[in-house]
Amino acid sequence: MTVSPIKVIELKASVLADNDADAALLREENRRKKVFYVNMMSSPGAGKTTLLLAALRRLDPSIAAAVMEADIDSDVDAAAVREAGFPVVQLHTGGMCHLDAAMSRQGLSQPEIAGADMVFLENVGNLVCPAEFDTGAALNVVLLSIPEGDDKPLKYPLMFEKADMIVLTKIDAAEAFDFDEARFRANAALCNPEARIYPVSALTGEGMAAWCRALEDSCKAFFGRCES
Amino acid sequence: MTVSPIKVIELKASVLADNDADAALLREENRRKKVFYVNMMSSPGAGKTTLLLAALRRLDPSIAAAVMEADIDSDVDAAAVREAGFPVVQLHTGGMCHLDAAMSRQGLSQPEIAGADMVFLENVGNLVCPAEFDTGAALNVVLLSIPEGDDKPLKYPLMFEKADMIVLTKIDAAEAFDFDEARFRANAALCNPEARIYPVSALTGEGMAAWCRALEDSCKAFFGRCES
Repeated sequence: MTVSPIKVIELKASVLADNDADAALLREENRRKKVFYVNMMSSPGAGKTTLLLAALRRLDPSIAAAVMEADIDSDVDAAAVREAGFPVVQLHTGGMCHLDAAMSRQGLSQPEIAGADMVFLENVGNLVCPAEFDTGAALNVVLLSIPEGDDKPLKYPLMFEKADMIVLTKIDAAEAFDFDEARFRANAALCNPEARIYPVSALTGEGMAAWCRALEDSCKAFFGRCES
Repeated sequence: MTVSPIKVIELKASVLADNDADAALLREENRRKKVFYVNMMSSPGAGKTTLLLAALRRLDPSIAAAVMEADIDSDVDAAAVREAGFPVVQLHTGGMCHLDAAMSRQGLSQPEIAGADMVFLENVGNLVCPAEFDTGAALNVVLLSIPEGDDKPLKYPLMFEKADMIVLTKIDAAEAFDFDEARFRANAALCNPEARIYPVSALTGEGMAAWCRALEDSCKAFFGRCES
């Protein structure tokens, strides 16, 4: 049996001057098409792919989920998602440090992920630039891993301000680091008192059920019921 | 006794079209002034400040060292450096995701760090954009922390390509993560076979002497002898 190569989309730079208007349009298009588009943002190495794989296995099986992996280069994450049996496309940003709404639309239009109810974007690992560009997602999820430290909302305030949900990852490794969750919550509240915070370990499964239920609830709230 | 506030420089966007030429000029100016300028780059939370503090305490005391902390917001890192007793200025990038040569020059001209032989820039935590802008530094150091994973050179190749030295941080936490150093070295060699790699723990001190010696040697190589 031959394995087909992972579909790689070389993204074109956006020509639209008004990304915010385009993002609002994409959100409405997705609502009509019943596509719940989730933008996952974090530093490099915070565990986006591992968290995604753990969530894909736990989400209500009536939800058809798919993934868009955005990277400057390589397709190692897309290969991991496909190996787990989920539809995936690899987006190459051509060196760009973020995705915008037009780039999202290029990815979402790919036949490999057509028909999905919930599409996760694994954005470029970067706590700065992706926060400046609305991708048109219905939900912005920001991951912070325990080893990164509890002061990060003070240093990257826009990213935490844009988060609908903050997922604290790698809590299984908490003993090796002096991360103070109460201090983190206080720092996060300074830029975003509304964000819901989910401490999880994709390794042990701790906290995953609560976060997956929150994703399903957000999906239902976005378009009544999440079904194709 | 009153404590004077940390000097915060609000950086202006660069007006020079040719950053590369300006960076080359700054490097020569620094060589004449006997300032060894070191650009420290990494993801958020890889441990730049902790590594810097550990290095400042170990460097040959005949070297007068100072620090420029670049952040989008906050001065928590600058406060930590000052508390340790070293000259420091805080650079605010006004939301920008990187520093360039003109911004470096604004920082280096501050009287608080004048007379230093070795000036460390703690760049904005970001594995993407800072790699695209030559700061005029004599040495580019890229940190990767063990929790981030051994695949990062594949995903952020330009950053690793620009590194003169790669410091692998948080090796004391290696047991909690499946980081394979041999695999990392192979991945790093794909984009940069020349980079010298230093595994360290700022917490236990392991590897710090070797890295500090390498810094001192690079400084001497840059301008004969590193003294004020």
